[in-house]
Amino acid sequence: MSAPIFPKLALIGIGLIGSSIALAARKTGLAGRVSIHTRSPATLKRAEELKLGDSYHADPANAVRDADCVILCVPVGVSGEIARAIAPALKTGAIVSDVGSVKASVVAQMAPHLPSGVHFVPAHPVAGTEYSGPDAGFAELFENRWCILTPPPGTDPEAVEKLAAFWRGIGANVETMTPEHHDLVLAITSHVPHLIAYNIVGTAADLETVTQSEVMKFSAGGFRDFTRIASSDPTMWRDVFLNNRTAVLEMLGRFTEDLIALQRLVRYGEGDQLFDLFTRTRAIRRGIIAAGQETAAPDFGRPHGPDLKKA
Amino acid sequence: MSAPIFPKLALIGIGLIGSSIALAARKTGLAGRVSIHTRSPATLKRAEELKLGDSYHADPANAVRDADCVILCVPVGVSGEIARAIAPALKTGAIVSDVGSVKASVVAQMAPHLPSGVHFVPAHPVAGTEYSGPDAGFAELFENRWCILTPPPGTDPEAVEKLAAFWRGIGANVETMTPEHHDLVLAITSHVPHLIAYNIVGTAADLETVTQSEVMKFSAGGFRDFTRIASSDPTMWRDVFLNNRTAVLEMLGRFTEDLIALQRLVRYGEGDQLFDLFTRTRAIRRGIIAAGQETAAPDFGRPHGPDLKKA
Repeated sequence: MSAPIFPKLALIGIGLIGSSIALAARKTGLAGRVSIHTRSPATLKRAEELKLGDSYHADPANAVRDADCVILCVPVGVSGEIARAIAPALKTGAIVSDVGSVKASVVAQMAPHLPSGVHFVPAHPVAGTEYSGPDAGFAELFENRWCILTPPPGTDPEAVEKLAAFWRGIGANVETMTPEHHDLVLAITSHVPHLIAYNIVGTAADLETVTQSEVMKFSAGGFRDFTRIASSDPTMWRDVFLNNRTAVLEMLGRFTEDLIALQRLVRYGEGDQLFDLFTRTRAIRRGIIAAGQETAAPDFGRPHGPDLKKA
Repeated sequence: MSAPIFPKLALIGIGLIGSSIALAARKTGLAGRVSIHTRSPATLKRAEELKLGDSYHADPANAVRDADCVILCVPVGVSGEIARAIAPALKTGAIVSDVGSVKASVVAQMAPHLPSGVHFVPAHPVAGTEYSGPDAGFAELFENRWCILTPPPGTDPEAVEKLAAFWRGIGANVETMTPEHHDLVLAITSHVPHLIAYNIVGTAADLETVTQSEVMKFSAGGFRDFTRIASSDPTMWRDVFLNNRTAVLEMLGRFTEDLIALQRLVRYGEGDQLFDLFTRTRAIRRGIIAAGQETAAPDFGRPHGPDLKKA
């Protein structure tokens, strides 16, 4: 156990990310007390049953009172509304942060509401599973994952370092960049992949020539992996696309342009060019494994158990 | 151990699938002897070091002599050439099969070369990992996976049942359909997903605004899963696209049409329609898990170990 970085931590929203922060903060001792607010009374009750915090509040302003750090763990579309609701109750000197997958829009929504005495340090832990809700959280979610901070120019460096220390303390690596660059990077590494996954699952569902039962039975050939991504939380992802429109449309435009070119290679039987692309893409995979963001264990849709030859 | 279904089994090609069949046949006792041919002398030597078979042959015709069953485990583009090479050496009454991811083209390539006394039963086990080569195989690869048989009309039902019994014996479920329907089903469940994965990894590699190092570091947001698929064997996949062109172009056309419509929803901020699609795609995922083709364990890029809350 470490000494608490934040004597009181307030979590607004207690889904997969919020509950994982709560469990990690408890496990490491980096938060003295944890107060929780979430909009749904049933979810708030569930968080209490799971003993995720020390106090539970129907009103977000009550949750953030006296908090040294407030982290919004909500779909990015409601960030502004929550900032407005909590602003009058924020303690002077408090750090206000979030975990949203989009940053420029969150800054634009929240900054106007925050009083001058608080430190606003937006954050995005690039971690998750396809599950959501307070039961989905686990303390190890952030281990060896990256947490990106996007503090506005002029933010107190001490506040930034305090939040960075918290994220490092619960296992994450920390990097800092501008909100705009974050949104561009995540558009290609996360948002467009999700959009494509949702799209192909939709395409498959609408076919008349292939039944849904066939799509499910024979999904082990690659489709299955897309359905995992396409089962992520609909509200969270709707808000991501509505709030990172420009970067998503830019990256999607490039993807489609490349796909049309690839389609042409298939149509005209350009085997050598197909082979070249398929070889080039292997190198990126090796880089990701080398960067510790993936294991080299072969994946064939079953738990990676000790019965496998490779580990 | 069961009584051998095939006193002698010949494997032509000894990559991931060939070596997995060899190991599964040995483990179950369903093949008396296993003879192996592969084109590369180094790979043939490696297969011998791994003790994958009982005899090793530089000439495919020598491998298939006296074999009761011959299974081609090669990129689909060379099926015809191999059928021509082995045809004179095939035993009357032998079953000739393959494991190609494309079926109509394999039938068109092989059938003209095969003598009338042999039973041609094309097959496709829908199983694999992102690894290739004789070291990648393991006996459990086919457990609870589907193997699709596409026997031409008039094929001896006894031969079909014998091959089906072999596949069931090494763990697979067996289904029969026409080669054309197979190619359509696999175009959407496997071929187009691979093409899309290769494509987005290529798009990401070509960006000027986001570095490759950033793409790798922040890949845990979804991109990572695409790189796994995009690291599959380039020769195998080149041949798949060259040999299932019509079905791939048909499915790709639908995918792109749907993607353009989705892009428009993002551009015009149609949140409700985005939410509806993202909700609809979850049901397919649940169907795949119910069909036993995927576990419900959350995936976050690390081995699914006992340290996880959910299993």
